Amino acid sequence: MAALIMKGPEVSAGMKDSLITEAAKLKPVLAIIRVGARPDDLSYERGIIKRFDSLGIKVKVHELPENISQQEFNSEFAKINSDSTNNGVLLFRPLPESLSDNFAVNTIDPKKDIDCMSPVNLAGVFAGDKESFAPCTPLAVMEMLKFYGIDLAGKNIAIVGRSLILGRPLAMLMLAENATVTICHTKTRNLQEVCKRADIIIAAAGKAKMITPVYVNENSIIVDVGINLDENNKLCGDVDFERVSPVVKAISPVPGGVGAVTTSILAKNLIKAAKR
Amino acid sequence: MAALIMKGPEVSAGMKDSLITEAAKLKPVLAIIRVGARPDDLSYERGIIKRFDSLGIKVKVHELPENISQQEFNSEFAKINSDSTNNGVLLFRPLPESLSDNFAVNTIDPKKDIDCMSPVNLAGVFAGDKESFAPCTPLAVMEMLKFYGIDLAGKNIAIVGRSLILGRPLAMLMLAENATVTICHTKTRNLQEVCKRADIIIAAAGKAKMITPVYVNENSIIVDVGINLDENNKLCGDVDFERVSPVVKAISPVPGGVGAVTTSILAKNLIKAAKR
Repeated sequence: MAALIMKGPEVSAGMKDSLITEAAKLKPVLAIIRVGARPDDLSYERGIIKRFDSLGIKVKVHELPENISQQEFNSEFAKINSDSTNNGVLLFRPLPESLSDNFAVNTIDPKKDIDCMSPVNLAGVFAGDKESFAPCTPLAVMEMLKFYGIDLAGKNIAIVGRSLILGRPLAMLMLAENATVTICHTKTRNLQEVCKRADIIIAAAGKAKMITPVYVNENSIIVDVGINLDENNKLCGDVDFERVSPVVKAISPVPGGVGAVTTSILAKNLIKAAKR
Repeated sequence: MAALIMKGPEVSAGMKDSLITEAAKLKPVLAIIRVGARPDDLSYERGIIKRFDSLGIKVKVHELPENISQQEFNSEFAKINSDSTNNGVLLFRPLPESLSDNFAVNTIDPKKDIDCMSPVNLAGVFAGDKESFAPCTPLAVMEMLKFYGIDLAGKNIAIVGRSLILGRPLAMLMLAENATVTICHTKTRNLQEVCKRADIIIAAAGKAKMITPVYVNENSIIVDVGINLDENNKLCGDVDFERVSPVVKAISPVPGGVGAVTTSILAKNLIKAAKR
Protein backbone atom coordinates (compact mmCIF):
# COMPACT_ATOMS: atom_id res chain seq x y z
CA MET A 1 0.00 0.00 0.00
CA ALA A 2 1.27 3.48 -0.82
CA ALA A 3 2.38 5.52 2.17
CA LEU A 4 0.29 8.35 3.52
CA ILE A 5 2.07 11.53 2.48
CA MET A 6 1.65 14.05 5.32
CA LYS A 7 1.56 17.41 3.61
CA GLY A 8 2.25 20.65 5.43
CA PRO A 9 -0.12 22.74 3.29
CA GLU A 10 -2.99 20.35 4.17
CA VAL A 11 -2.24 20.81 7.87
CA SER A 12 -2.09 24.58 7.47
CA ALA A 13 -5.33 24.59 5.48
CA GLY A 14 -6.97 22.61 8.26
CA MET A 15 -5.98 25.26 10.79
CA LYS A 16 -7.07 28.21 8.67
CA ASP A 17 -10.76 28.65 9.47
CA SER A 18 -10.39 28.70 13.21
CA LEU A 19 -7.37 31.03 13.00
CA ILE A 20 -9.36 33.46 10.82
CA THR A 21 -12.30 33.40 13.22
CA GLU A 22 -10.10 33.98 16.27
CA ALA A 23 -8.07 36.68 14.52
CA ALA A 24 -11.22 38.58 13.54
CA LYS A 25 -12.33 38.51 17.16
CA LEU A 26 -9.01 39.35 18.85
CA LYS A 27 -7.25 41.50 16.23
CA PRO A 28 -3.78 40.42 17.38
CA VAL A 29 -0.63 42.26 16.29
CA LEU A 30 2.76 40.69 15.67
CA ALA A 31 5.91 42.81 15.91
CA ILE A 32 8.86 41.47 13.96
CA ILE A 33 12.30 42.83 14.80
CA ARG A 34 14.86 42.35 12.07
CA VAL A 35 18.42 43.68 12.17
CA GLY A 36 19.88 44.16 8.72
CA ALA A 37 18.47 42.36 5.68
CA ARG A 38 19.81 38.82 5.52
CA PRO A 39 18.19 36.91 2.63
CA ASP A 40 16.97 34.07 4.88
CA ASP A 41 15.42 36.55 7.32
CA LEU A 42 13.70 38.33 4.43
CA SER A 43 12.41 35.07 3.05
CA TYR A 44 11.04 34.01 6.45
CA GLU A 45 9.51 37.47 6.89
CA ARG A 46 7.76 37.29 3.50
CA GLY A 47 6.38 33.88 4.44
CA ILE A 48 5.00 35.20 7.71
CA ILE A 49 3.47 38.31 6.16
CA LYS A 50 1.81 36.30 3.39
CA ARG A 51 0.35 33.74 5.79
CA PHE A 52 -0.74 36.31 8.38
CA ASP A 53 -2.29 38.44 5.65
CA SER A 54 -4.38 35.48 4.54
CA LEU A 55 -5.55 35.11 8.14
CA GLY A 56 -6.30 38.81 8.62
CA ILE A 57 -3.51 39.34 11.14
CA LYS A 58 -1.49 42.53 11.27
CA VAL A 59 2.31 42.34 11.17
CA LYS A 60 4.53 45.31 12.06
CA VAL A 61 8.11 44.96 10.83
CA HIS A 62 10.79 46.91 12.69
CA GLU A 63 13.91 46.91 10.56
CA LEU A 64 16.98 48.07 12.45
CA PRO A 65 20.27 48.99 10.74
CA GLU A 66 22.92 46.29 10.63
CA ASN A 67 25.43 48.59 12.28
CA ILE A 68 23.17 49.54 15.21
CA SER A 69 24.98 49.80 18.55
CA GLN A 70 24.24 47.33 21.33
CA GLN A 71 22.79 50.08 23.45
CA GLU A 72 20.50 51.35 20.71
CA PHE A 73 19.41 47.83 19.87
CA ASN A 74 18.57 47.08 23.50
CA SER A 75 16.64 50.30 23.80
CA GLU A 76 14.68 49.67 20.58
CA PHE A 77 13.96 46.14 21.70
CA ALA A 78 12.74 47.34 25.09
CA LYS A 79 10.43 49.87 23.46
CA ILE A 80 8.82 47.35 21.10
CA ASN A 81 8.59 44.76 23.88
CA SER A 82 6.77 47.11 26.23
CA ASP A 83 4.42 48.49 23.58
CA SER A 84 1.05 47.22 24.78
CA THR A 85 -0.37 47.18 21.24
CA ASN A 86 2.01 44.32 20.34
CA ASN A 87 0.65 40.93 21.35
CA GLY A 88 3.68 39.01 20.15
CA VAL A 89 7.31 39.92 19.55
CA LEU A 90 9.51 37.95 17.17
CA LEU A 91 13.22 38.73 16.98
CA PHE A 92 15.02 37.22 14.00
CA ARG A 93 18.16 35.47 15.13
CA PRO A 94 21.06 35.06 14.92
CA LEU A 95 21.80 38.76 15.21
CA PRO A 96 24.80 40.23 13.36
CA GLU A 97 28.04 39.17 15.03
CA SER A 98 28.60 42.59 16.57
CA LEU A 99 25.42 42.25 18.67
CA SER A 100 24.46 40.07 21.62
CA ASP A 101 20.89 38.85 22.05
CA ASN A 102 21.41 38.49 25.80
CA PHE A 103 19.36 41.52 26.81
CA ALA A 104 16.50 40.60 24.45
CA VAL A 105 16.38 36.97 25.58
CA ASN A 106 16.25 37.97 29.23
CA THR A 107 13.83 40.88 29.01
CA ILE A 108 11.27 39.75 26.44
CA ASP A 109 7.86 39.56 28.06
CA PRO A 110 7.29 35.79 28.35
CA LYS A 111 3.62 36.42 27.46
CA LYS A 112 4.66 37.92 24.09
CA ASP A 113 7.47 35.45 23.44
CA ILE A 114 5.63 33.38 20.83
CA ASP A 115 8.69 31.51 19.56
CA CYS A 116 10.17 30.54 22.94
CA MET A 117 13.22 32.75 23.26
CA SER A 118 12.84 33.47 27.00
CA PRO A 119 14.23 31.07 29.62
CA VAL A 120 10.82 31.35 31.32
CA ASN A 121 9.13 29.70 28.34
CA LEU A 122 11.96 27.23 27.88
CA ALA A 123 11.65 26.21 31.53
CA GLY A 124 7.87 25.98 31.09
CA VAL A 125 8.25 23.66 28.10
CA PHE A 126 10.72 21.56 30.09
CA ALA A 127 8.22 21.41 32.94
CA GLY A 128 5.37 20.41 30.63
CA ASP A 129 3.42 23.61 31.34
CA LYS A 130 0.92 24.01 28.49
CA GLU A 131 0.55 27.74 29.07
CA SER A 132 4.16 28.31 27.99
CA PHE A 133 5.10 29.01 24.40
CA ALA A 134 7.06 26.17 22.81
CA PRO A 135 9.18 26.85 19.71
CA CYS A 136 7.19 26.75 16.47
CA THR A 137 8.87 23.84 14.67
CA PRO A 138 8.26 21.17 17.34
CA LEU A 139 4.70 22.49 17.68
CA ALA A 140 4.34 22.11 13.90
CA VAL A 141 5.37 18.45 14.19
CA MET A 142 2.74 17.92 16.90
CA GLU A 143 0.08 19.67 14.81
CA MET A 144 0.90 17.51 11.80
CA LEU A 145 0.62 14.26 13.75
CA LYS A 146 -2.65 15.43 15.28
CA PHE A 147 -4.04 16.47 11.89
CA TYR A 148 -3.42 13.00 10.48
CA GLY A 149 -4.98 11.34 13.51
CA ILE A 150 -1.79 9.81 14.83
CA ASP A 151 -2.18 9.24 18.55
CA LEU A 152 1.01 9.37 20.60
CA ALA A 153 0.02 7.71 23.89
CA GLY A 154 2.21 4.69 24.55
CA LYS A 155 3.97 5.01 21.19
CA ASN A 156 7.73 4.61 20.89
CA ILE A 157 9.29 7.66 19.32
CA ALA A 158 12.85 8.02 18.06
CA ILE A 159 13.87 11.65 17.79
CA VAL A 160 17.08 11.93 15.80
CA GLY A 161 18.65 15.22 16.88
CA ARG A 162 18.94 16.85 20.29
CA SER A 163 18.84 20.56 19.49
CA LEU A 164 17.22 23.08 21.78
CA ILE A 165 14.96 24.34 19.02
CA LEU A 166 13.71 20.93 17.99
CA GLY A 167 14.77 17.63 19.55
CA ARG A 168 14.60 18.54 23.22
CA PRO A 169 11.39 20.60 23.26
CA LEU A 170 9.69 18.07 20.97
CA ALA A 171 10.65 15.30 23.40
CA MET A 172 8.93 17.26 26.19
CA LEU A 173 5.79 17.90 24.10
CA MET A 174 5.58 14.22 23.21
CA LEU A 175 6.16 13.12 26.82
CA ALA A 176 3.20 15.29 27.75
CA GLU A 177 1.13 13.17 25.32
CA ASN A 178 2.37 10.02 27.04
CA ALA A 179 4.73 8.89 24.30
CA THR A 180 7.90 7.00 25.20
CA VAL A 181 10.68 9.10 23.74
CA THR A 182 14.24 8.15 22.81
CA ILE A 183 16.50 11.10 22.04
CA CYS A 184 19.21 10.10 19.57
CA HIS A 185 22.15 11.98 18.08
CA THR A 186 25.47 11.59 16.28
CA LYS A 187 26.93 9.56 19.16
CA THR A 188 24.06 7.06 19.27
CA ARG A 189 25.60 3.65 18.66
CA ASN A 190 22.76 1.63 17.19
CA LEU A 191 20.74 4.34 15.49
CA GLN A 192 19.42 2.10 12.71
CA GLU A 193 18.08 -0.34 15.25
CA VAL A 194 16.57 2.35 17.48
CA CYS A 195 14.79 3.93 14.50
CA LYS A 196 13.69 0.62 13.02
CA ARG A 197 11.83 -0.48 16.12
CA ALA A 198 10.22 2.95 16.79
CA ASP A 199 6.60 3.59 15.87
CA ILE A 200 7.42 7.16 14.87
CA ILE A 201 10.73 8.60 13.66
CA ILE A 202 11.43 12.31 13.84
CA ALA A 203 14.35 13.16 11.57
CA ALA A 204 16.03 16.34 12.80
CA ALA A 205 19.70 15.63 12.45
CA GLY A 206 20.47 18.19 9.77
CA LYS A 207 22.10 15.60 7.51
CA ALA A 208 20.77 15.26 3.97
CA LYS A 209 18.99 11.96 3.20
CA MET A 210 20.59 10.10 6.10
CA ILE A 211 17.45 8.07 6.89
CA THR A 212 17.45 5.28 4.32
CA PRO A 213 15.25 2.16 4.06
CA VAL A 214 17.43 0.24 6.56
CA TYR A 215 16.25 2.62 9.31
CA VAL A 216 12.54 1.91 8.87
CA ASN A 217 9.91 -0.77 8.92
CA GLU A 218 6.66 -1.04 6.99
CA ASN A 219 4.70 0.53 9.85
CA SER A 220 7.07 3.46 10.39
CA ILE A 221 5.59 6.94 10.58
CA ILE A 222 8.23 9.52 9.67
CA VAL A 223 8.25 13.26 10.16
CA ASP A 224 11.17 14.92 8.40
CA VAL A 225 12.29 18.21 9.94
CA GLY A 226 15.56 18.46 8.02
CA ILE A 227 16.24 21.31 5.63
CA ASN A 228 19.31 20.58 3.53
CA LEU A 229 20.63 20.93 0.02
CA ASP A 230 21.30 17.72 -1.86
CA GLU A 231 24.13 16.98 -4.29
CA ASN A 232 22.25 18.88 -7.03
CA ASN A 233 21.71 21.90 -4.76
CA LYS A 234 18.05 20.99 -4.44
CA LEU A 235 16.16 21.35 -1.15
CA CYS A 236 15.84 18.03 0.67
CA GLY A 237 15.17 16.65 4.14
CA ASP A 238 17.03 14.26 6.43
CA VAL A 239 15.14 11.35 4.87
CA ASP A 240 15.89 9.80 1.50
CA PHE A 241 12.26 10.36 0.52
CA GLU A 242 12.43 8.66 -2.86
CA ARG A 243 13.65 5.36 -1.42
CA VAL A 244 11.95 5.49 1.97
CA SER A 245 8.45 6.68 1.07
CA PRO A 246 7.48 3.45 -0.80
CA VAL A 247 8.30 1.24 2.20
CA VAL A 248 6.71 3.01 5.19
CA LYS A 249 3.22 3.73 6.48
CA ALA A 250 3.36 7.55 6.54
CA ILE A 251 5.93 10.22 5.77
CA SER A 252 6.20 13.99 5.42
CA PRO A 253 8.09 15.41 2.43
CA VAL A 254 10.65 18.24 2.25
CA PRO A 255 9.74 20.77 0.94
CA GLY A 256 5.99 20.76 1.56
CA GLY A 257 6.13 19.19 5.01
CA VAL A 258 6.64 20.57 8.50
CA GLY A 259 8.14 23.80 7.16
CA ALA A 260 4.79 24.70 5.62
CA VAL A 261 3.11 24.52 9.03
CA THR A 262 5.40 26.73 11.15
CA THR A 263 3.97 30.12 10.18
CA SER A 264 0.45 28.84 10.97
CA ILE A 265 1.79 27.76 14.38
CA LEU A 266 3.26 31.22 14.83
CA ALA A 267 -0.22 32.65 14.18
CA LYS A 268 -1.73 30.15 16.61
CA ASN A 269 0.77 31.19 19.30
CA LEU A 270 0.06 34.87 18.61
CA ILE A 271 -3.65 34.26 19.10
CA LYS A 272 -2.91 32.40 22.32
CA ALA A 273 -0.89 35.44 23.44
CA ALA A 274 -3.70 37.82 22.50
CA LYS A 275 -6.20 35.78 24.54
CA ARG A 276 -4.34 36.50 27.76
CA MET B 1 29.96 -13.06 39.31
CA ALA B 2 28.50 -10.98 42.13
CA ALA B 3 27.20 -7.58 41.08
CA LEU B 4 29.08 -4.42 41.88
CA ILE B 5 27.12 -2.71 44.66
CA MET B 6 27.34 1.04 44.08
CA LYS B 7 27.25 2.56 47.55
CA GLY B 8 26.36 6.18 48.18
CA PRO B 9 28.63 6.56 51.21
CA GLU B 10 31.61 5.45 49.08
CA VAL B 11 30.77 8.10 46.49
CA SER B 12 30.41 10.75 49.19
CA ALA B 13 33.67 9.68 50.82
CA GLY B 14 35.37 10.00 47.45
CA MET B 15 34.16 13.60 47.15
CA LYS B 16 35.12 14.58 50.69
CA ASP B 17 38.77 15.64 50.44
CA SER B 18 38.34 18.03 47.55
CA LEU B 19 35.18 19.52 49.12
CA ILE B 20 37.05 20.14 52.40
CA THR B 21 39.95 21.78 50.57
CA GLU B 22 37.67 24.02 48.53
CA ALA B 23 35.51 24.88 51.55
CA ALA B 24 38.57 25.90 53.58
CA LYS B 25 39.59 28.21 50.77
CA LEU B 26 36.22 29.73 49.90
CA LYS B 27 34.38 29.63 53.25
CA PRO B 28 30.97 29.35 51.59
CA VAL B 29 27.74 29.89 53.52
CA LEU B 30 24.45 28.10 52.92
CA ALA B 31 21.18 29.70 54.01
CA ILE B 32 18.35 27.26 54.61
CA ILE B 33 14.82 28.65 54.74
CA ARG B 34 12.35 26.41 56.49
CA VAL B 35 8.71 27.32 57.17
CA GLY B 36 7.29 25.41 60.12
CA ALA B 37 8.86 22.19 61.38
CA ARG B 38 7.74 19.26 59.23
CA PRO B 39 9.49 16.06 60.28
CA ASP B 40 10.85 15.35 56.78
CA ASP B 41 12.22 18.89 56.49
CA LEU B 42 13.87 18.54 59.89
CA SER B 43 15.37 15.21 58.93
CA TYR B 44 16.75 16.63 55.65
CA GLU B 45 18.06 19.66 57.54
CA ARG B 46 19.87 17.47 60.09
CA GLY B 47 21.45 15.51 57.24
CA ILE B 48 22.70 18.68 55.57
CA ILE B 49 24.06 20.18 58.79
CA LYS B 50 25.87 16.97 59.68
CA ARG B 51 27.46 16.61 56.24
CA PHE B 52 28.33 20.28 55.89
CA ASP B 53 29.79 20.30 59.39
CA SER B 54 32.09 17.43 58.43
CA LEU B 55 33.21 19.49 55.44
CA GLY B 56 33.74 22.69 57.42
CA ILE B 57 30.87 24.53 55.75
CA LYS B 58 28.65 26.96 57.61
CA VAL B 59 24.87 26.55 57.48
CA LYS B 60 22.48 29.26 58.62
CA VAL B 61 18.95 28.02 59.26
CA HIS B 62 16.14 30.55 58.98
CA GLU B 63 13.06 29.05 60.58
CA LEU B 64 9.89 30.94 59.76
CA PRO B 65 6.61 30.40 61.60
CA GLU B 66 4.13 28.10 59.90
CA ASN B 67 1.43 30.78 60.04
CA ILE B 68 3.58 33.48 58.42
CA SER B 69 1.70 35.70 55.96
CA GLN B 70 2.53 35.60 52.27
CA GLN B 71 3.79 39.16 52.40
CA GLU B 72 6.05 38.52 55.38
CA PHE B 73 7.35 35.33 53.83
CA ASN B 74 8.17 37.09 50.56
CA SER B 75 9.91 39.88 52.40
CA GLU B 76 11.96 37.47 54.55
CA PHE B 77 12.88 35.49 51.46
CA ALA B 78 13.97 38.62 49.61
CA LYS B 79 16.14 39.69 52.55
CA ILE B 80 17.93 36.33 52.81
CA ASN B 81 18.28 36.10 49.03
CA SER B 82 19.90 39.50 48.73
CA ASP B 83 22.22 39.04 51.71
CA SER B 84 25.62 38.99 50.05
CA THR B 85 27.11 36.81 52.80
CA ASN B 86 24.91 33.90 51.64
CA ASN B 87 26.44 31.99 48.73
CA GLY B 88 23.57 29.58 48.39
CA VAL B 89 19.88 29.69 49.33
CA LEU B 90 17.84 26.55 49.86
CA LEU B 91 14.10 26.82 50.45
CA PHE B 92 12.46 23.67 51.74
CA ARG B 93 9.39 22.86 49.70
CA PRO B 94 6.53 22.24 49.52
CA LEU B 95 5.57 25.25 51.62
CA PRO B 96 2.54 25.05 53.93
CA GLU B 97 -0.68 25.10 51.89
CA SER B 98 -1.46 28.68 52.86
CA LEU B 99 1.69 29.93 51.08
CA SER B 100 2.74 30.16 47.45
CA ASP B 101 6.36 29.70 46.42
CA ASN B 102 5.80 31.76 43.29
CA PHE B 103 7.65 34.85 44.47
CA ALA B 104 10.59 32.83 45.78
CA VAL B 105 10.90 30.74 42.61
CA ASN B 106 10.90 33.82 40.42
CA THR B 107 13.16 36.07 42.49
CA ILE B 108 15.82 33.71 43.80
CA ASP B 109 19.21 34.78 42.50
CA PRO B 110 20.01 32.08 39.91
CA LYS B 111 23.62 32.21 41.07
CA LYS B 112 22.56 31.18 44.60
CA ASP B 113 19.92 28.69 43.49
CA ILE B 114 21.92 25.56 44.24
CA ASP B 115 19.00 23.13 43.98
CA CYS B 116 17.52 24.44 40.71
CA MET B 117 14.33 26.18 41.79
CA SER B 118 14.61 29.12 39.37
CA PRO B 119 13.32 28.85 35.78
CA VAL B 120 16.66 30.34 34.72
CA ASN B 121 18.51 27.27 36.02
CA LEU B 122 15.83 24.92 34.76
CA ALA B 123 16.14 26.44 31.29
CA GLY B 124 19.92 26.20 31.58
CA VAL B 125 19.74 22.50 32.41
CA PHE B 126 17.36 22.00 29.47
CA ALA B 127 19.81 23.83 27.22
CA GLY B 128 22.75 21.75 28.46
CA ASP B 129 24.51 24.77 29.97
CA LYS B 130 27.02 23.43 32.48
CA GLU B 131 27.17 26.70 34.40
CA SER B 132 23.56 26.25 35.52
CA PHE B 133 22.64 24.46 38.71
CA ALA B 134 20.87 21.17 38.11
CA PRO B 135 18.78 19.60 40.89
CA CYS B 136 20.84 17.59 43.38
CA THR B 137 19.36 14.11 42.89
CA PRO B 138 20.09 13.77 39.15
CA LEU B 139 23.57 15.20 39.80
CA ALA B 140 24.01 12.54 42.50
CA VAL B 141 23.20 9.85 39.93
CA MET B 142 25.80 11.30 37.55
CA GLU B 143 28.39 11.48 40.34
CA MET B 144 27.76 7.87 41.29
CA LEU B 145 28.20 6.61 37.72
CA LYS B 146 31.38 8.68 37.36
CA PHE B 147 32.77 7.40 40.68
CA TYR B 148 32.37 3.80 39.55
CA GLY B 149 33.98 4.54 36.17
CA ILE B 150 30.85 4.02 34.11
CA ASP B 151 31.20 5.96 30.88
CA LEU B 152 27.96 7.18 29.30
CA ALA B 153 28.99 8.03 25.73
CA GLY B 154 26.96 6.00 23.26
CA LYS B 155 25.27 3.99 26.02
CA ASN B 156 21.55 3.29 25.90
CA ILE B 157 19.84 4.54 29.03
CA ALA B 158 16.29 3.81 30.15
CA ILE B 159 15.06 6.37 32.64
CA VAL B 160 11.88 5.14 34.29
CA GLY B 161 10.09 8.26 35.49
CA ARG B 162 9.64 11.67 33.90
CA SER B 163 9.53 14.04 36.87
CA LEU B 164 10.96 17.52 36.73
CA ILE B 165 13.18 16.86 39.73
CA LEU B 166 14.66 13.66 38.39
CA GLY B 167 13.76 12.05 35.06
CA ARG B 168 13.80 15.10 32.80
CA PRO B 169 16.89 16.88 34.14
CA LEU B 170 18.78 13.58 34.35
CA ALA B 171 17.94 12.93 30.70
CA MET B 172 19.49 16.32 29.81
CA LEU B 173 22.61 15.69 31.90
CA MET B 174 23.06 12.29 30.26
CA LEU B 175 22.48 13.69 26.76
CA ALA B 176 25.29 16.14 27.46
CA GLU B 177 27.52 13.10 28.05
CA ASN B 178 26.45 11.66 24.69
CA ALA B 179 24.21 8.91 26.05
CA THR B 180 21.14 7.85 24.09
CA VAL B 181 18.27 8.37 26.48
CA THR B 182 14.80 6.84 26.53
CA ILE B 183 12.39 8.49 28.95
CA CYS B 184 9.80 5.99 30.16
CA HIS B 185 6.78 6.33 32.43
CA THR B 186 3.55 4.70 33.52
CA LYS B 187 2.13 4.86 29.97
CA THR B 188 5.14 3.16 28.36
CA ARG B 189 3.81 0.06 26.65
CA ASN B 190 6.79 -2.25 26.56
CA LEU B 191 8.68 -1.12 29.64
CA GLN B 192 10.19 -4.53 30.40
CA GLU B 193 11.63 -4.73 26.90
CA VAL B 194 12.93 -1.14 26.93
CA CYS B 195 14.68 -1.72 30.27
CA LYS B 196 15.99 -5.14 29.33
CA ARG B 197 17.85 -3.88 26.28
CA ALA B 198 19.24 -0.74 27.96
CA ASP B 199 22.84 -0.61 29.18
CA ILE B 200 21.83 1.44 32.19
CA ILE B 201 18.45 1.59 33.96
CA ILE B 202 17.53 4.54 36.17
CA ALA B 203 14.61 3.57 38.40
CA ALA B 204 12.73 6.70 39.42
CA ALA B 205 9.11 5.72 39.15
CA GLY B 206 8.24 5.94 42.83
CA LYS B 207 6.82 2.41 42.89
CA ALA B 208 8.24 -0.01 45.45
CA LYS B 209 10.20 -2.94 43.99
CA MET B 210 8.67 -2.61 40.52
CA ILE B 211 11.91 -3.51 38.71
CA THR B 212 12.13 -7.28 38.93
CA PRO B 213 14.52 -9.73 37.20
CA VAL B 214 12.41 -9.75 34.00
CA TYR B 215 13.38 -6.10 33.41
CA VAL B 216 17.13 -6.71 33.37
CA ASN B 217 19.94 -8.59 31.70
CA GLU B 218 23.25 -9.83 33.10
CA ASN B 219 25.04 -6.68 31.93
CA SER B 220 22.49 -4.22 33.31
CA ILE B 221 23.75 -1.34 35.43
CA ILE B 222 20.98 -0.09 37.70
CA VAL B 223 20.72 3.11 39.69
CA ASP B 224 17.74 3.11 42.03
CA VAL B 225 16.40 6.54 42.90
CA GLY B 226 13.15 5.34 44.46
CA ILE B 227 12.36 5.96 48.11
CA ASN B 228 9.36 3.90 49.20
CA LEU B 229 8.09 1.86 52.10
CA ASP B 230 7.65 -1.85 51.50
CA GLU B 231 4.91 -4.12 52.84
CA ASN B 232 6.73 -4.28 56.20
CA ASN B 233 7.05 -0.48 56.38
CA LYS B 234 10.75 -0.76 55.63
CA LEU B 235 12.55 1.72 53.37
CA CYS B 236 13.04 0.32 49.86
CA GLY B 237 13.73 1.50 46.32
CA ASP B 238 11.98 1.00 42.99
CA VAL B 239 14.07 -2.12 42.40
CA ASP B 240 13.49 -5.50 44.01
CA PHE B 241 17.08 -5.46 45.22
CA GLU B 242 17.07 -8.93 46.75
CA ARG B 243 16.03 -10.63 43.53
CA VAL B 244 17.66 -8.29 41.00
CA SER B 245 21.11 -7.74 42.54
CA PRO B 246 22.30 -11.33 41.96
CA VAL B 247 21.55 -11.21 38.21
CA VAL B 248 22.97 -7.84 37.06
CA LYS B 249 26.40 -6.26 36.60
CA ALA B 250 26.02 -3.30 38.97
CA ILE B 251 23.30 -1.87 41.19
CA SER B 252 22.81 0.79 43.85
CA PRO B 253 20.89 -0.13 47.02
CA VAL B 254 18.18 1.80 48.90
CA PRO B 255 18.96 2.97 51.53
CA GLY B 256 22.69 3.59 51.15
CA GLY B 257 22.57 4.54 47.49
CA VAL B 258 21.91 7.79 45.65
CA GLY B 259 20.25 9.34 48.70
CA ALA B 260 23.57 9.25 50.54
CA VAL B 261 25.18 11.39 47.82
CA THR B 262 22.73 14.29 47.53
CA THR B 263 23.97 16.38 50.46
CA SER B 264 27.54 16.09 49.12
CA ILE B 265 26.22 17.35 45.78
CA LEU B 266 24.53 20.23 47.58
CA ALA B 267 27.93 21.10 49.07
CA LYS B 268 29.54 20.81 45.64
CA ASN B 269 26.94 23.17 44.16
CA LEU B 270 27.44 25.61 47.04
CA ILE B 271 31.17 25.66 46.35
CA LYS B 272 30.48 26.21 42.66
CA ALA B 273 28.26 29.16 43.67
CA ALA B 274 30.94 30.57 45.98
CA LYS B 275 33.53 30.44 43.18
CA ARG B 276 31.58 32.89 41.06
